[in-house]
Formats: sequence, C-alpha cells, structure tokens
Amino acid sequence: MMKRRDMMTGGLAAVMAGSPVLAQSQIAQSPGAEHRWRMTSSYPASLDAVYGAGNTFIKVLGEISQGRIQIQHFAAGEIVGGFQALDAVQNGTVECCDTAPFYYIGKDPSFAFGASVPFGLSTRQQNSWFFQAGGLELLNELFSQYNVVGIPIGNTNAQMAGWFRKEIKSVADLQGLKMRIGGLAGQVIAKLGAVPQQIPAGDIYPALERGTIDAAEWVGPYDDERLGFSKVAPYYYYPGWWEGASAIFLFINKQKWDELTPLDHALITAAAHQANTMTIAKYDQVNPAAIRRLVAAGTQLRAFPPDVMEACYKAANEMYAEISSQNPLFKRLHEHMSAFRNDQYLWQQIAEYSYETFMIRARGRS
Amino acid sequence: MMKRRDMMTGGLAAVMAGSPVLAQSQIAQSPGAEHRWRMTSSYPASLDAVYGAGNTFIKVLGEISQGRIQIQHFAAGEIVGGFQALDAVQNGTVECCDTAPFYYIGKDPSFAFGASVPFGLSTRQQNSWFFQAGGLELLNELFSQYNVVGIPIGNTNAQMAGWFRKEIKSVADLQGLKMRIGGLAGQVIAKLGAVPQQIPAGDIYPALERGTIDAAEWVGPYDDERLGFSKVAPYYYYPGWWEGASAIFLFINKQKWDELTPLDHALITAAAHQANTMTIAKYDQVNPAAIRRLVAAGTQLRAFPPDVMEACYKAANEMYAEISSQNPLFKRLHEHMSAFRNDQYLWQQIAEYSYETFMIRARGRS
Repeated sequence: MMKRRDMMTGGLAAVMAGSPVLAQSQIAQSPGAEHRWRMTSSYPASLDAVYGAGNTFIKVLGEISQGRIQIQHFAAGEIVGGFQALDAVQNGTVECCDTAPFYYIGKDPSFAFGASVPFGLSTRQQNSWFFQAGGLELLNELFSQYNVVGIPIGNTNAQMAGWFRKEIKSVADLQGLKMRIGGLAGQVIAKLGAVPQQIPAGDIYPALERGTIDAAEWVGPYDDERLGFSKVAPYYYYPGWWEGASAIFLFINKQKWDELTPLDHALITAAAHQANTMTIAKYDQVNPAAIRRLVAAGTQLRAFPPDVMEACYKAANEMYAEISSQNPLFKRLHEHMSAFRNDQYLWQQIAEYSYETFMIRARGRS
Repeated sequence: MMKRRDMMTGGLAAVMAGSPVLAQSQIAQSPGAEHRWRMTSSYPASLDAVYGAGNTFIKVLGEISQGRIQIQHFAAGEIVGGFQALDAVQNGTVECCDTAPFYYIGKDPSFAFGASVPFGLSTRQQNSWFFQAGGLELLNELFSQYNVVGIPIGNTNAQMAGWFRKEIKSVADLQGLKMRIGGLAGQVIAKLGAVPQQIPAGDIYPALERGTIDAAEWVGPYDDERLGFSKVAPYYYYPGWWEGASAIFLFINKQKWDELTPLDHALITAAAHQANTMTIAKYDQVNPAAIRRLVAAGTQLRAFPPDVMEACYKAANEMYAEISSQNPLFKRLHEHMSAFRNDQYLWQQIAEYSYETFMIRARGRS
C-alpha cells in the first residue's frame, strides 16, 4: 500500500508549489468525481442469471473504482416497468438500465441486432461482431438517436424455442397459435399465421396457465424452470431459431456518459467485459442440471420439424427484405451482420463444428 | 472530475483530525503502490493474435489502474526462451509471463488442463469451467506448487490439426510420423506409432521445410498462415482433437501477487477478462479470411478419417487412465473436467448444436 500521509502531503505540496512533475503525477492519480447511479432492470430479481449480469457489473465496477462509481440496481417494476427501461434512461429518470435491446423494436426494428435476430449469431460470433468487427459501433449509431450508450454485459447463449401446450407437427399447426415471443421473431411467425405477443417475464405464466396464450418462450432450462412453465405446457421445443444468442445490454444516458472521464469509461468497459463473460459462463454452468430436472419431471423435448424450420427461415428472409427496403440503418445492420455470420460458419464448420460433432457422438457412446 | 484541491485538503484534514468518517473515505480513495513489472512471453511478437492477448491485458490494466501498474512485454527469447517462461516467473527473474500451461507437462502433466487436453473442452465450456465451475481454483492448487498464480487472458478457440506433407488415410499412416505437436497429444499419437516433438513457434517452419519433421500443428489459419507452413506441406487437417480450445494464461509470481492489494487483484482480474474476450473475438474475426486465402493459394483441407479419430480417442482415454493412476491431482482435474464436459454436451446438443447445424446447412444453400 502507498503511504497515505506521504501521498497527501507530497500531493498537497505539489499543488501548492505548482511543481510540474509532481503535479502531473498527482493528476494521474486523481481518481475523479464520485457517482451514485440508479439502474433499472427489465428483469425480476428472482431470475438470478439474467438479473445477475447487472449485479456482477455493479459489483466489479464498485471494486475497481474503489467505490467511486456506485450503482443501485432496481428490478423491473420498482421504478419503471421492464419494457420502459430504455425510456427511463433516455429521459434521465435513471442514469442506466440493464435490458434486452430487442424490447424496443417498436421504436426501431434495428434494436433487435443488439439482442438477437432470427437466424442470427451465436454467442461467440456475437462477441466477435460486437467487439472486433464493428458491430457495437454500428449499434451505437442507433442507440445515440435514443440518447443512450450501449455496452453488452451478458448473454443467455442459444435459447430454447419455448413451451407449447400442443405439439407442432407441421407449419399448419402454427395457424392461429397465440405465442409470447421476443423480438423480430413475432413478425416471422405472424407470416405463418401465428399471433405473437410481447409479455414481460412475470406475466407469462398466468397467461399460459389460463390459456390466454398457447405457447411461450422465455430463455432456456434454468430461467424457464424458475418461471414454472413446465407445469402448464408439456412440450419444450428447440432450437430457438430467433435467439441463437441473446445479449443483455447496459444502456447509459448519453449526458451521464459524456460527463465521465476516460478512466471511468475504461473502468465501465472492463467491468462490462467481466460481467459478460461471467454471465455466459453462468448460463453454461446451470443449464445442464436444469434440463435434466425438467426432463425427469416429465417435460417432453421436441425438435421443430424440418419443414417448420425451413418455412420460418424463408419467412425471416422475407421480413429482412421488407424492413430493409424501408429502413436504411436496419439494412446496413442486417447486411453487416449477415456477411459476418456467413464468414463465421464458413470457418467454424471446419475445426469447431467437426470437433463438436465428434464429441457429442463420443458422449452418447460412453 | 473531482476537484483536486478539495480532495487533497479534505483528505489531509481528515487524516490530521482523525475523523473516522472522512479517514475511511480517504482510505477508499488511496490508489496504492506503483508497480513496474516485466512480462516474458512464450510467443514471438509477430504472432499478433496470441501475443496480443498479453498486450491487451497490459493496455487495459494500465488504463484502469491510471498507469499505476505498468507492465513491459518481452517476446520469447528476449529475456528467456518461450518454454522457460514459467521458470522465470517461479524464480522471480520476471514478475509475470503469458504462456500456454501445457508447455510445462514435463514438470507435471496436470498443467495441460490449463491450456487444452485431447478431447477436452470448447472455448465457452472452458470459460465456464474456469470461472463458474471451480476449474480455475483447482488449477491454482497446481500452479501454487510452482510459486505462481494463474489467470486466463485469451483463447485460440478450436484449432486445426496441422500441416502434413503426406495424407493420413488410416491409422497405419501415423506409424513413424515425426510431428511437432503441443501438450498431451504427443503421448496419444506416440501410442499409435508417431514420434511427437515439442518445438517453439519460430523453429517449426525450418524443421518442416527440411523434412526433420513430417507434420506440424500450431494453431489455426490466421497464425499458421503467418508462419508459412502452407509453402512446405500441402495437407491441412482437422479437427485438432487435442485443442478443442486452448487457453493463454497469465502467470504471476506468488510473492508479487501477495504483495498486491485487493484493489490490484480486482483490476488485474477485470483486465484479464477483457483480454480474454478480445482475444477470443479476434481469432473468430481473423480466421475466416485466412482459411479462404490459404485454400485459394492451394492448401488442401482434409478431415481425419473416422478410424483415425476413434483410435486417437481410445489412445487418449488409455493415457488418461495411466497418468491418473500415478498422479492424484491429474486424476482430480481429469474427473472434474470430464464430468463438466459431458454435462455441457448433454445440454448443448439440444439448443446450441441443432441451431448451428441448421445454420451451417442454410449457409451452404445460400
């Protein structure tokens, strides 16, 4: 530890003497202003994995800023509702929020690229696109229009397609299906005759129980088990083709961000990276035991039939073309992300996928 | 920015007055001692992805510590050779190094679990095992015996199996094959009649060119292209079943670590997480273009035949049993990692793998 008295007297002497060398050293050591922020979440605190992304970010930032940047976390509904998080940050009600950008596709469908889009990127691809391929910069062109800066702090990894009261044996079974579904996938299944609904986490279970909806997707085994869906819908479908990965974002009010120092920006970035990795790692750690428990308790796993997957893929591409023809930023984001994704699979199918395929088969034998 | 004079006079007043509240605030603000460390690398600086993991860590740590912890990076051979990095940290020649733990299997085969083992974890699985499932704590039981603390700062992701002068059409073609190969895989291919060699990055090309060795693996398209292997061996095999992922570690001398404050530990941890994510993302970003260029220039991609994969898998399991019977820590690490891996594939084959399979086929059609 630095000797406190030496630093204080030396620093004070430097300021008072105007010594340029010591003054410079003192500037380098000046930690900057204190900040007490509020963060409103789109999630209930009971969903510890997804809500935990924000908690981890806050904890790490508190530690590495020596308590200088302290953020208080509020669950969905405590300050504003889960889907009002962006508005609350945009208008300065709170300084920041943790949310899924695709909750705001009503404002601009481009928001979906910040969480997940149908037939989009995997978790690792999404990190690479965000952090090394320019994806995050492109997204922040959008976010800045809503007076916020966006930084990823977690990911759910590939999701399940959710809980169905009846089996889906063909595209015809989607006709009239009322389904809680996130992001742009609603527009895709609507093309196939389904009726999509956006419902916050806490309200899904009663809707599914009462039969107000016929199906609901949330995240994956660990979160879904906590929300109790297995009690009211027996069929658990995969893959969640609209969420090959789904990022959790920190949105910070732009004026608040601009008031911070470069040091504060670096501290927030580092804490966000740690939260991102820890959240991805947490979902990977907790999902296997959860899927085991669900299946042991009677949940029936079902894969979407190939013709359903194909029909959804075709409908998704139609949707992309339609929105792109009207929304230049959406078009740029879609073309940028798609080119990146196609390159990723070109390479991943060689080393990564062939390795994975062998390992999955080897596991099945042992 | 905090007003410097206010902080200084307020802080000094608190110290002098012994005010408990203000004194506590001052303690929280004390940034601690300065550190000037040297980091020796196992890699040449020309390999910017793998060497870049250390660079990113150093840069981020410098920023978030306000220049208080400054580390100078030295390429392999500048202070000590690539495979002497651990020794140099252990005996205090340098404070830290960036290396692949499996370079030290000659000291204890358990080191391999810190980088990669045959038929081991993928990148995301490895992060989850390290950070959420207790893997890193277990590894540090080993590392502490060598007077170092280990923290991951990057990953190469799934690797290629390397460059072969002749095709491998059956297990018989491994007989007498002299191959540069990393980690425990050498012991596996030795069981099948091959002659493994450990050679640092810079010496592989001349050995392969002269025919001193018949085959060599390094990492994947981006790094391998830089080392020029395609000019002297036409066949590029996959998958690298001994490196489904391969972690890059920071080793810090234990006395140096113990001298640091909890703040410094948190700063190092956060910077390491950022470097880890950025390195994984970098490999994903640069490999697709590299594999395209290699194939365009004449490299011929080859998958190992199924009987070769099966023979290697069987030989690997024999090796695990043999080493485990003699080395209790290796046994614990292997059992811990294997149980985690099998659980991971149980879950990943459902949502993640079925999604990936669809996407790879969809890409092939478009």
